[in-house]
Amino acid sequence: MAAAKPENLSLVVHGPGDLRLENYPIPEPGPNEVLLKMHSVGICGSDVHYWQHGRIGDFVVKKPMVLGHEASGTVVKVGSLVRHLQPGQQSPFANGFVYSFSTYISVLNLYILGFYTGEGNWDRQLPDNVTFEEGALIEPLSVGIHACRRAGVTLGNKVLVCGAGPIGLVSLLAAKAMGAAQVVVTDLSASRLSKAKEVGADFILQISNESPQEIAKKVEGLLGSKPEVTIECTGVETSIQAGIYATHSGGTLVLVGLGSEMTSVPLVHAATREVDIKGVFRYCNTWPMAISMLASKSVNVKPLVTHRFPLEKALEAFETSKKGLGLKVMIKCDPNDQNP
Amino acid sequence: MAAAKPENLSLVVHGPGDLRLENYPIPEPGPNEVLLKMHSVGICGSDVHYWQHGRIGDFVVKKPMVLGHEASGTVVKVGSLVRHLQPGQQSPFANGFVYSFSTYISVLNLYILGFYTGEGNWDRQLPDNVTFEEGALIEPLSVGIHACRRAGVTLGNKVLVCGAGPIGLVSLLAAKAMGAAQVVVTDLSASRLSKAKEVGADFILQISNESPQEIAKKVEGLLGSKPEVTIECTGVETSIQAGIYATHSGGTLVLVGLGSEMTSVPLVHAATREVDIKGVFRYCNTWPMAISMLASKSVNVKPLVTHRFPLEKALEAFETSKKGLGLKVMIKCDPNDQNP
Amino acid sequence: MAAAKPENLSLVVHGPGDLRLENYPIPEPGPNEVLLKMHSVGICGSDVHYWQHGRIGDFVVKKPMVLGHEASGTVVKVGSLVRHLQPGQQSPFANGFVYSFSTYISVLNLYILGFYTGEGNWDRQLPDNVTFEEGALIEPLSVGIHACRRAGVTLGNKVLVCGAGPIGLVSLLAAKAMGAAQVVVTDLSASRLSKAKEVGADFILQISNESPQEIAKKVEGLLGSKPEVTIECTGVETSIQAGIYATHSGGTLVLVGLGSEMTSVPLVHAATREVDIKGVFRYCNTWPMAISMLASKSVNVKPLVTHRFPLEKALEAFETSKKGLGLKVMIKCDPNDQNP
Amino acid sequence: MAAAKPENLSLVVHGPGDLRLENYPIPEPGPNEVLLKMHSVGICGSDVHYWQHGRIGDFVVKKPMVLGHEASGTVVKVGSLVRHLQPGQQSPFANGFVYSFSTYISVLNLYILGFYTGEGNWDRQLPDNVTFEEGALIEPLSVGIHACRRAGVTLGNKVLVCGAGPIGLVSLLAAKAMGAAQVVVTDLSASRLSKAKEVGADFILQISNESPQEIAKKVEGLLGSKPEVTIECTGVETSIQAGIYATHSGGTLVLVGLGSEMTSVPLVHAATREVDIKGVFRYCNTWPMAISMLASKSVNVKPLVTHRFPLEKALEAFETSKKGLGLKVMIKCDPNDQNP
Repeated sequence: MAAAKPENLSLVVHGPGDLRLENYPIPEPGPNEVLLKMHSVGICGSDVHYWQHGRIGDFVVKKPMVLGHEASGTVVKVGSLVRHLQPGQQSPFANGFVYSFSTYISVLNLYILGFYTGEGNWDRQLPDNVTFEEGALIEPLSVGIHACRRAGVTLGNKVLVCGAGPIGLVSLLAAKAMGAAQVVVTDLSASRLSKAKEVGADFILQISNESPQEIAKKVEGLLGSKPEVTIECTGVETSIQAGIYATHSGGTLVLVGLGSEMTSVPLVHAATREVDIKGVFRYCNTWPMAISMLASKSVNVKPLVTHRFPLEKALEAFETSKKGLGLKVMIKCDPNDQNP
Repeated sequence: MAAAKPENLSLVVHGPGDLRLENYPIPEPGPNEVLLKMHSVGICGSDVHYWQHGRIGDFVVKKPMVLGHEASGTVVKVGSLVRHLQPGQQSPFANGFVYSFSTYISVLNLYILGFYTGEGNWDRQLPDNVTFEEGALIEPLSVGIHACRRAGVTLGNKVLVCGAGPIGLVSLLAAKAMGAAQVVVTDLSASRLSKAKEVGADFILQISNESPQEIAKKVEGLLGSKPEVTIECTGVETSIQAGIYATHSGGTLVLVGLGSEMTSVPLVHAATREVDIKGVFRYCNTWPMAISMLASKSVNVKPLVTHRFPLEKALEAFETSKKGLGLKVMIKCDPNDQNP
Repeated sequence: MAAAKPENLSLVVHGPGDLRLENYPIPEPGPNEVLLKMHSVGICGSDVHYWQHGRIGDFVVKKPMVLGHEASGTVVKVGSLVRHLQPGQQSPFANGFVYSFSTYISVLNLYILGFYTGEGNWDRQLPDNVTFEEGALIEPLSVGIHACRRAGVTLGNKVLVCGAGPIGLVSLLAAKAMGAAQVVVTDLSASRLSKAKEVGADFILQISNESPQEIAKKVEGLLGSKPEVTIECTGVETSIQAGIYATHSGGTLVLVGLGSEMTSVPLVHAATREVDIKGVFRYCNTWPMAISMLASKSVNVKPLVTHRFPLEKALEAFETSKKGLGLKVMIKCDPNDQNP
Repeated sequence: MAAAKPENLSLVVHGPGDLRLENYPIPEPGPNEVLLKMHSVGICGSDVHYWQHGRIGDFVVKKPMVLGHEASGTVVKVGSLVRHLQPGQQSPFANGFVYSFSTYISVLNLYILGFYTGEGNWDRQLPDNVTFEEGALIEPLSVGIHACRRAGVTLGNKVLVCGAGPIGLVSLLAAKAMGAAQVVVTDLSASRLSKAKEVGADFILQISNESPQEIAKKVEGLLGSKPEVTIECTGVETSIQAGIYATHSGGTLVLVGLGSEMTSVPLVHAATREVDIKGVFRYCNTWPMAISMLASKSVNVKPLVTHRFPLEKALEAFETSKKGLGLKVMIKCDPNDQNP
């Protein structure tokens, strides 16, 4: 028997450490769904975590699950009740929970352009001058925008970003786009910091074994004064502590990186200096904003992509991501179009 | 030798546990100062702490210091450069750092009506229908107002106040005045909670040995849903933890009580639910607001005063305050007027 | 001839000046609808306007239309897809566009508890201690809450309310509930102002033929300083002008009353003093807040109801409302329960 | 005749149309003053207005007055009480009311770096990489920053700027720096619009005799949707009307240009669509922000300067400005340094 040509290759996690490329039938979209032919999907740290641990906190992989949620593709078919999307000529991008590393996926109309976007009458389509990979990066960029918005970044601010991974760098990009005058990025890795510098960091600070107070002092030295805003993207306890010491009185520390449940922090120091501590739950209402910024070239996310793999080599791509090589690893789902 | 009549009796801390009533000359106001004849001065927890420990954090009593900063009195003399205050017919109240438990004090014009009030051209005078004791309570009331303002308390809010001491109760009063629909107050002491109920708490919750999560659950049970705002006035680690668990997603926890420098908190729980953690540094711009509220009878602070002592019995007053008997202990500085 | 018992009496406008009581069959609720047995429905100025002019702006009565949108009733039947409401034991209130003056109406589930409330999982039911008439008054109260929220009314504010009709009075109630220290209400009518005083106005000001500047001066005289907030509820050009002159620099004028399309205003005076001019489009997210306030007795709307008529006498009720007698005229739709 | 060397040449308005270059003695700074050797001072529309009319509103020229308030220079001497400035090595910029078109001026320490800056302990000094002319442009730039801040310009916004004069262009620059995705600038003059395009306008729209509604429609056409923010810099009634029609529901119109006192506007249209109308009174707290932006090269004001004249040719400079040739005319006060 001649093997059927794989029509819908998908990357599926079955349990801790058990990641497989499998073939599925192309789904038929339901009445409120659209069928997307995927183009580019980025690997997120949470994808790697699902693969390694079979869970993230209370979310446990109980049955085979297709990973991936930083995605863009083309609508090829729409359900009977879908009003704002059409097959063929459009090229929107998609974001679902976890089921994007596939050749085709079918998602609820609502999930096109991010969670919770409702049925608004704005275009769910990437402008012509925005690439599929830029579209796939809107999801992580949204995290940076939401973090900076929660921090109230404004014109002339000095900002500290802890961590030079993808989320640190999108936070840097968002802060600059919102008018930050000077941004310091910290990290353990010199190569990551060098990328931070490339995409716009005014200062970089490589951390080795300084105390939180020492880090705060170095940041103040670089900026000339304490930053009004700190975006913490590592989740590491000492980095959170450094963020509190470093932030200017009356400023804001935003926690994006997540660490252990209980954290020991200098709360009196934060409270008496009125340094607000805020977290983020993903993002909301960032999609149209992010598209505007990409279309007007006000923000450049392209340098974040350091590796590309075809979907057939997804396991190799995950290994690359796990090793922390490069920054954002893109999986190219369309065998006929591997362009950015 | 016939003892000179005490002309300016003052309560002075000389070091840990060393509190003395002493007589001083009546000071002459400098060019920007006003001389106040004190009427009523409340004892604050920080006064007791200075007496017991001779210090608060980095503030160490190195030379004899007159305590007291919740004060009201009458202007009897003004310096040559003072423009907005006149002796005699006026009855403003004063607030300085720590030097109010005296018959007379001389303070910078700027400190009349709170720190940092500048030289604005509004009346620095208590309205006729506001008593001296209400004037003295404006300082602690300001802490409650500032905390509720930082929390963004608004119409219809459900609020949790942890701690039924004076600061807990002014927070309760401020929250209700700002439109809170329901307020729960927690404390270890049944008698304090009974006072909380008297001044307007919708619900009270006596804490014994519940876990933070259990406290949060009980609060939710009383209110029907989690409170949007928690005002933490104890500084106790488990109470801060309970505040995080108890607060509604997207809500705010304000830290007013201060405990140990490093605190262990469920930060991931707070961050992913976007529960903001904010502190307060005293207050600002609350004085005119507080006077308006007292003058319009929108807030009633009178029940907070449970004990009164003449200045001559100040040591007895401090013992009462230290034992936690009652709520606010007032020292009456004018031997000829011991009225509220 | 024995007349058939009217099973669903309704008040219908057919054109300008043409208002009729007619009998209809009881509607069958659609899948997403609930059938309500109406209890109390208030007459709004816009209802009277529809009756008199057969239109409001671009909204023209082209076919017979049931008036009424300040309503409360009891669910008696729910459509197949309705999840959060049940017939019988519940007593929610309804608000639709215009179709409430009936014995029975069927409305979309979404419209229970106000426009745009979505499918949230909170109770759509009046608490036991809130009457049907209070429920019917939530709609106008929401306008006052939204106006005060847009104005940023906060603790200790001085507020000017122009107009002592129902909307002026709910704005007064909302302002006081949000912490306003002093509210002045203006009107042409002494009897309306007397009602304003009864429900909580600190000052009232009867307008005769003063210039806008003179009105502003009188308001400042009553309050001791200019109000931070003005809520304009008349739509009259001179009153809007007075509102601009009266409001404190840096304050806010909210336009609730609507007048002619083009209005001549001292815009330079407003702009250079940074007096913001804001309008309101109905309200949003006010329903749960209003229910909380009513349940906790933080606001008392009961005195607003000055007249009650059974549905059979609706035409007489509309005449009463048209003449401006009293304040809020309630129509009682349930022949077996005419209680508040 | 050997003319005495002019030691402190100054440009003085004596009355309507009466502008003279006169020589004065170099002033001696008072205790709180600093003596500045002026370098670059821009001509503002209000300077021209004083010259032409001898007054601006209630401000009447009653005695000879030195014009100019967009200024930068070098401290050459400080009064006995001045703490934060030193002669010689520093090169701060100054801003007073009107007395800058001179070789030397003496101003209150407080006025260095803008009105109302208080005695904060931040540097009152231009960074090395900021030119004197950039320093002189901080005053108008501050107007643009304050307007955009009042409007709440944020990431991804679409913005309409009415008027392509200096204030329109600094508003454009501020809006882009705060993250605006697309800005349309309107004006009557093609040459001004061409400059707007040069400094960053995404779209320009030349107005001829369109109605306000037609202008609004064209703006919407260019942007694809209505702008969330409109900054009105002309003060012309029809332009203000166009701004109201053009702004997106829920957006903000900021009035920077001032016209006649009474203005006829479609207030119902603004109010029911919740388009807020806000003015600006100069600016506050913009100086440090503006310096940060200039130092970090986040905003480029240099192209705004189109003409330069030495102080000796100030009358010619004013004629140039009056004719509306070019954009910002700079007067160079230091005969030995005519550099930017």
